[in-house]
Amino acid sequence: MAAPSEGDTASLLPDLPGGPLQAYRARASFCWKELALFLEGEDMLRLKKSIFSALEDDPLFARSRGHELSLEKHRELTFLRCKRVLGRALLRVEDMVQNPLSVLTLITCLGTYDWSLAQKFLLHLLVFGLAIYKSGSERHLEYLPKILNMEIFGCFAVTEVSHGSNAKAIRTTAHYDPATEEFILHSPDFEAAKFWVGNMGKTATHAVVFAQLYTPGGRCHGLHSFLVQIRNPKTLLPMPGVMVGDIGKKLGLNGVDNGFAMFHKVRIPRQALLNQTGDVTPEGTYVTPFKAELGREIHALVSGSKPLASWTAQRGIQECREACGGHGYLAVNRLGDLRNENDPNCTYEGDNNVLLQQTSGYLLGLLELRLQGGARLESPLGTVDFLEAYPDILDQRFSCPSVAGCLESSVPLAAYEWLVCYLLRESVQKVNQEKRSGISDFEARNNSQVYRCRSLALAFLELTVVRTFHEYVHQPSVPPPLRAVLRRLSALYALWSLNQHTALLYRGGYFSGEQAGKMIEDAILALCAQGSPWRFAGVARHTDFVSQQLKDDAVALVDVIAPPDFILDSPIGRADGELYKNLWTAVLQEGQVLERASWWAEFSASKTHVESLKSRL
Amino acid sequence: MAAPSEGDTASLLPDLPGGPLQAYRARASFCWKELALFLEGEDMLRLKKSIFSALEDDPLFARSRGHELSLEKHRELTFLRCKRVLGRALLRVEDMVQNPLSVLTLITCLGTYDWSLAQKFLLHLLVFGLAIYKSGSERHLEYLPKILNMEIFGCFAVTEVSHGSNAKAIRTTAHYDPATEEFILHSPDFEAAKFWVGNMGKTATHAVVFAQLYTPGGRCHGLHSFLVQIRNPKTLLPMPGVMVGDIGKKLGLNGVDNGFAMFHKVRIPRQALLNQTGDVTPEGTYVTPFKAELGREIHALVSGSKPLASWTAQRGIQECREACGGHGYLAVNRLGDLRNENDPNCTYEGDNNVLLQQTSGYLLGLLELRLQGGARLESPLGTVDFLEAYPDILDQRFSCPSVAGCLESSVPLAAYEWLVCYLLRESVQKVNQEKRSGISDFEARNNSQVYRCRSLALAFLELTVVRTFHEYVHQPSVPPPLRAVLRRLSALYALWSLNQHTALLYRGGYFSGEQAGKMIEDAILALCAQGSPWRFAGVARHTDFVSQQLKDDAVALVDVIAPPDFILDSPIGRADGELYKNLWTAVLQEGQVLERASWWAEFSASKTHVESLKSRL
Repeated sequence: MAAPSEGDTASLLPDLPGGPLQAYRARASFCWKELALFLEGEDMLRLKKSIFSALEDDPLFARSRGHELSLEKHRELTFLRCKRVLGRALLRVEDMVQNPLSVLTLITCLGTYDWSLAQKFLLHLLVFGLAIYKSGSERHLEYLPKILNMEIFGCFAVTEVSHGSNAKAIRTTAHYDPATEEFILHSPDFEAAKFWVGNMGKTATHAVVFAQLYTPGGRCHGLHSFLVQIRNPKTLLPMPGVMVGDIGKKLGLNGVDNGFAMFHKVRIPRQALLNQTGDVTPEGTYVTPFKAELGREIHALVSGSKPLASWTAQRGIQECREACGGHGYLAVNRLGDLRNENDPNCTYEGDNNVLLQQTSGYLLGLLELRLQGGARLESPLGTVDFLEAYPDILDQRFSCPSVAGCLESSVPLAAYEWLVCYLLRESVQKVNQEKRSGISDFEARNNSQVYRCRSLALAFLELTVVRTFHEYVHQPSVPPPLRAVLRRLSALYALWSLNQHTALLYRGGYFSGEQAGKMIEDAILALCAQGSPWRFAGVARHTDFVSQQLKDDAVALVDVIAPPDFILDSPIGRADGELYKNLWTAVLQEGQVLERASWWAEFSASKTHVESLKSRL
Repeated sequence: MAAPSEGDTASLLPDLPGGPLQAYRARASFCWKELALFLEGEDMLRLKKSIFSALEDDPLFARSRGHELSLEKHRELTFLRCKRVLGRALLRVEDMVQNPLSVLTLITCLGTYDWSLAQKFLLHLLVFGLAIYKSGSERHLEYLPKILNMEIFGCFAVTEVSHGSNAKAIRTTAHYDPATEEFILHSPDFEAAKFWVGNMGKTATHAVVFAQLYTPGGRCHGLHSFLVQIRNPKTLLPMPGVMVGDIGKKLGLNGVDNGFAMFHKVRIPRQALLNQTGDVTPEGTYVTPFKAELGREIHALVSGSKPLASWTAQRGIQECREACGGHGYLAVNRLGDLRNENDPNCTYEGDNNVLLQQTSGYLLGLLELRLQGGARLESPLGTVDFLEAYPDILDQRFSCPSVAGCLESSVPLAAYEWLVCYLLRESVQKVNQEKRSGISDFEARNNSQVYRCRSLALAFLELTVVRTFHEYVHQPSVPPPLRAVLRRLSALYALWSLNQHTALLYRGGYFSGEQAGKMIEDAILALCAQGSPWRFAGVARHTDFVSQQLKDDAVALVDVIAPPDFILDSPIGRADGELYKNLWTAVLQEGQVLERASWWAEFSASKTHVESLKSRL
């Protein structure tokens, strides 16, 4: 792809304002507009621009700087915005169906504006809506238009107050009564109340509720989902037998009303069962048409991706907040919002440490099968295929003669393959050793998490990311002017990530001698350095690759991914780089900045009198 | 010290409530009351109890659960509480003077209740008050009783909007005018406004202001501090020429009113100069009586302690918040408050990374002096004395034959001494290499921070903590029943901390072979394990030391350091361990939990109509 012509991009990617950042932008080795076009494509850029502009142009989405929002007002505003987003149909249903990635773009754009809004929208439309579409059948299709035009509003109720990540332990029950062809939904006690359910606190009229299904005679068929009306859409008052409320303020995401519900023998029709994987006949017989076979590789990847991504983001945001010093701690600059709104990603929809067990379990299972003489080690997406060479990889050793040689992601990629094999062997040994001591398999697995299975899962995911990144930047379609910067980024991510595992690389013998570890560190520093004058010790001066490094590209790279100023809404982060001017403007717009305190008279009222101090001092 | 008799401790350390934690408490290897008495001493326990009880008994300190505080109300409440604390004289002036540690106890107790209150109190009484006492002279003593009875309220104004940790770059000026015997205090522009000053936003009547002192003829004598009245104590209105305001909401600590001020040629008397280190005669001659020689070792230790402590706390709080899952994310449980109120410790009073340079600079300077043939390497507190054996230590190698041998803090202590020597050598080499490339000393030092000087400073501080902990738990005065648990804690901290540096231990050759690194990990796991039945692989079963490990002591250890329930104010953290019951009680006390939303009518109002969806679905 050639560098974009002015006509193509002028409206999609307008020039950035001048100011103090201009000098830094001028140092970039590439054109930021070309990279944005290459990464996103024109269609996505257009979609993003249309969403961002729709938000900026609508007063309902005006930023409420200078006003404190009460919890009630915050929730009202987020609800109204969610309604407006659905009403404006920012993305047409046909486009969603044709290109599911566009839904992700919509959610991400809404989230970049405000993650409460994105969550509320996502929980209603996708989590609730898709649960009905995917887990229900023909008889549930009538609900979909009602979801789209918000005749009903949904939530997804799995978690209970004392059971989060452990879905099997859920205690809400649904007993089938053939006499009336109804299920009787019941919460046995307060600990089994549904809790933390997003949208349930104040707005949801319907819930997909997970409960243990019982047929007459008392047989339990395990966890199933039911579509349950919890409020009257006309009045928003609870339905009889449903105690539903709001769990209160959270560390962030306070536009979303997380709620709780207890069901007191609530009768729902037989058809309320979302019967994709199992159904109950009118007479009360449980029938299951087929087993839903999961994509195990995708499950393993997803279960590791969320921990890796949420922890990396949390660490990165905290680093940025500290790097901005006090100004990063000022609420108006919104690094606190970013941190508090990413934080729950570490625990919801499965605690990170619990999820990582899914990933390591998958890898351990594959190896066990193979060692028992199973088929060739391979998977649909190919992420585990390298394990076929497991014993050979373990014999490999680090062989990079110079720092300059380490500036390519192929070096850390090879190290990662060894690392995953090493951790796999260590994990297998540990689990077996634990099992031999006579404890249960569950306990043996638990005792093998720290330093073994948990590290294995993370390293496997990092390898997958490093490999995907490496392949992406080496594909022939990358425009030549963008190759150098993308390859440097790929190498930096890979080396920085790998460097967290240097201890294991030494311990297992992949690294030996002082130079191996130093080279990785020096390569990281070289990649972060300024390009010219090039004086980084230990690296050849004249190779083209190292003549310009990432420090010079930093501002332009941010330009590629940064949302518009209105969306980012951070005075110190505006594109013009005039951080102090913008900070002052923002501070002076807050309420009562220069006014004396309303309670000023308290200052001199009834002065304290400490016993005759003067004499003593 | 014998185990405390019932009479001694019944009132100071009442029994804890029964409940689900009782079974865990019964497993402890020691008596929690005995440890509390040993750690704190009876006097401190009594002081803490009197402070905590005073807060709990006074309705002004009632917890405001279920009510959202506006910024204005939060600040008013914190001010009133601060006034009450001073008025109640929880600690007598004589006691503060006799035992300065008691002041720390008071601040810590107030902070455990609410760090906004502690900060407000600390900034006024100690930071502002001590600045006048220490930097002023006889002529300023008249202010001290006014501070104690709050006739005036103080703040400490160093930071400017564009200069935080770099105090030398401050641009506020104080020109002396001999005609009127006044200084003219001036802020040249908005970037030089004082900013972030705690208590300045709404309450301070006086400020200690740092400015560049100029005498007639234009000579600058550097940074000096001046006592400046910024508001009228009767009206809290600003003094003429002072623009003073509130910088707005922060990520936490919102009971403290951080503020800004610009001075427009404000005239203050000559005597307002805090003249301990330099004065100006009525005619305008600058005179300096002596140089304030700083305790360099203490400075180096303090500059490294704050980073180590604040980062460790931040990491620990985040770990606890995640370990509590969603409930840790619920505001009422207050892990968010802990995190947000610790967060600024990472950057204020000197950014952590900047401060660490003070510590590494001290060590590099000492070594340079020694290598130039200077005197023996030693310091008043002895923290660097081991460096005298620098070359010999570098020749040492890890020599611990078994995991059981690693369960003592002497093993990591020896490794730390090697590590600091290694990082010192690496840092010196790096700085010299940078200097040889022809850049300035400042740049050379900057370029040597990552992986070298920064790691050195942290490792040195960790070594100091590990050594202090080790010596503390091995002193003969430790009651025999407490020895085992304290030594295990010391070993766990040391090994856990050291384990972050395993890569360097291998790289520099202190560790070799697979076993060294594994032993450290296994020792950490063994120390965290449950005592009985003892089945941790690789560790002898019958030694007394390992027969009971820290998992069994965990709850009792928390009992030793935990503040009373009222002070902690966290439903999931109450001493009775009834977390779900307490959580429900708290959630149901919040405002409008079960009421429908006040904006319920918006739900059905003007329904959105997405174009004829039904046909398509």
